[in-house]
Amino acid sequence: MRGFQPSEFSARTRRAQELMDAAGLSALLLTTETDVRYFTGYLTRFWESPTRPWYLIVPATGKPVAVIPSIGQALMAKTWLDDIRTWTSPDLQDDGVSLLADALMELTPADGRIAVPDGHETHVRMPLADIERLRGKLGAREIASDFGILRQLRMVKSEAEIAKIETACHIAGKAFARVPEIVGAGIPLDEVFRKFQMLCLEEGADWVPYLAGGAEQGGYSDVISPASSEPLAVGDVLMLDTGLVWDGYFSDFDRNWAIGPARSDVKSSYARLIEASDAAFEIARPGATAADLFYAMNAVLTKDAGSTDAGRLGHGLGMSLTEWPSLIPTDDTVLQPGMVLTLEPGIAVGNKILVHEENIVITEGTPRFISPRIGPEIIEI
Amino acid sequence: MRGFQPSEFSARTRRAQELMDAAGLSALLLTTETDVRYFTGYLTRFWESPTRPWYLIVPATGKPVAVIPSIGQALMAKTWLDDIRTWTSPDLQDDGVSLLADALMELTPADGRIAVPDGHETHVRMPLADIERLRGKLGAREIASDFGILRQLRMVKSEAEIAKIETACHIAGKAFARVPEIVGAGIPLDEVFRKFQMLCLEEGADWVPYLAGGAEQGGYSDVISPASSEPLAVGDVLMLDTGLVWDGYFSDFDRNWAIGPARSDVKSSYARLIEASDAAFEIARPGATAADLFYAMNAVLTKDAGSTDAGRLGHGLGMSLTEWPSLIPTDDTVLQPGMVLTLEPGIAVGNKILVHEENIVITEGTPRFISPRIGPEIIEI
Repeated sequence: MRGFQPSEFSARTRRAQELMDAAGLSALLLTTETDVRYFTGYLTRFWESPTRPWYLIVPATGKPVAVIPSIGQALMAKTWLDDIRTWTSPDLQDDGVSLLADALMELTPADGRIAVPDGHETHVRMPLADIERLRGKLGAREIASDFGILRQLRMVKSEAEIAKIETACHIAGKAFARVPEIVGAGIPLDEVFRKFQMLCLEEGADWVPYLAGGAEQGGYSDVISPASSEPLAVGDVLMLDTGLVWDGYFSDFDRNWAIGPARSDVKSSYARLIEASDAAFEIARPGATAADLFYAMNAVLTKDAGSTDAGRLGHGLGMSLTEWPSLIPTDDTVLQPGMVLTLEPGIAVGNKILVHEENIVITEGTPRFISPRIGPEIIEI
Repeated sequence: MRGFQPSEFSARTRRAQELMDAAGLSALLLTTETDVRYFTGYLTRFWESPTRPWYLIVPATGKPVAVIPSIGQALMAKTWLDDIRTWTSPDLQDDGVSLLADALMELTPADGRIAVPDGHETHVRMPLADIERLRGKLGAREIASDFGILRQLRMVKSEAEIAKIETACHIAGKAFARVPEIVGAGIPLDEVFRKFQMLCLEEGADWVPYLAGGAEQGGYSDVISPASSEPLAVGDVLMLDTGLVWDGYFSDFDRNWAIGPARSDVKSSYARLIEASDAAFEIARPGATAADLFYAMNAVLTKDAGSTDAGRLGHGLGMSLTEWPSLIPTDDTVLQPGMVLTLEPGIAVGNKILVHEENIVITEGTPRFISPRIGPEIIEI
């Protein structure tokens, strides 16, 4: 099913309002694609345009109120919202700030605290000068922190959200399975990138916001580069890491292939990666922490070595390619049923690296792989 | 050619430093993908991940200094920068703020003014709480406005930038020309969207960040909706509007097709759109303003009617899908050679709309179409 039942949005709003009440907040002010969509279902690729600001207010009671450019009115009117206020944007004198301030004044008490997400993995998507202008129009009202309310809500997914992420993962799995059709020695890496995105679309992706990877002898140098035009060669390890979207939700996992026979150190390192992600999978249950998963993987990855500069070994996943929590030593977030995580161990092979990534969902008991679980032997093409 | 010569980046930096000097600014602090890339060439789809902040400092003299997560070090080291400072991100205690503050203290005088883009079409891509933390670490230094320096620089493209935008437009043109291969009565619109993105990739797009459109009887309801699964029907007007990327630069134009024979009001309204964009094209020379182009189009669009709620009729184009200036009545930006614009007239047909869009470049003399110029007769499929 595309979209969500209205009950999904009213439940999200109610939970937010409970947390707001406990924190003494009068309203949430949201400005990013994901946060606005979380409470509305408003789904459009138009956010690719940085020109216009979009505002959503979650008041202490009742439905959210949209304060948006008029170009979005028709589409927003299809959501469960009743109160949609628009202005003709861009307005070089006052790009929605007065309209937003009026709405906030109406919806909050004179000494109200208006909260914005202000912590890790957030930003306020409006001009900095307009934040100051808004402050100046709000009287005694304060712009405050949301104390991580959005993080807390979005980190635990509903069954309907998990189903969408699973669909995205299923599509990515089918595309990855067809990679041998498009790969071989002599084919330039940028052609592989293009054709892989086509496979994702052919298998049902709505769009492909993210593709990175690499292919060099015995590994690759980093995992965030765009494709070079270098042709694949025997001895290369090819990695493709995609974040594709289905109905607004991401998959995020990778696959590795050896071009020709894999070197023995590549084989053993690759097997170690699978062992590492399996080790995290085994303990990924309610009560364990994000840090616990890091340590479970890191113990496998550093079995023969003294230390590692491992960085992050996985993260949350959902409406964004990457979300809270982080699988790092300092993230003590306790796992809860409904969290969707990537397990993403990396290992050095000489002066190259290999990275493996799977997606899992935390349940009441044993976790569940939502990317197609893969064996310890690297596939040779 | 992929990328730019180092001389391109040194010229951009020098121009920025001249403008900074004139405005009494000690440094620029940049946080968004486009602004960081403008001075570095740092190109990666990894910005899709909202987790990590990235910082670039343009000091009063010398090369820019990057303060970035260590995951980006290898790729940033391939740019023309010499000074790259990294931290292991995400760091839940201090996600680069101290490292950034130290760099700013070193690179600016004690009473320095550190400028961030803070006007229309900008935001600061870092947590709001970290902006406050940064302020607290900078002593007497002030976080100030960039007074539109980034806008002024990025709005006028170099020959090398224009060549990339033209390549993107050329690819989009070839994909649009092949739309009859994938379109026909009975084919669901979301399938058309998927296949069109595949055509863009097949014709050479690196990726397809933007696709919107619509297809309804005699027009469409809005221009920002994602695809429905509704099958195309005779009498529909199909519009596809894509922003595809080649080497980090966008095309942004659309095409319309009638499914079966076009209604006479559709034909005449469509011809009016072409007449409108041609009218703007005719006067799009140095010295004319963005508002002049708006009025040239609006005069054609409202020839038979009293008024219109036209909104914006085009915009700048480049590293972003949409950029300054805006073709609206209040934007007095004077056109200069090197500006790349979209002409995007829209017209009502009953309770539906039609929108047409072309891309042009402003030169010393006659402007140049960089999207394939199209005739006044809507194509029937």
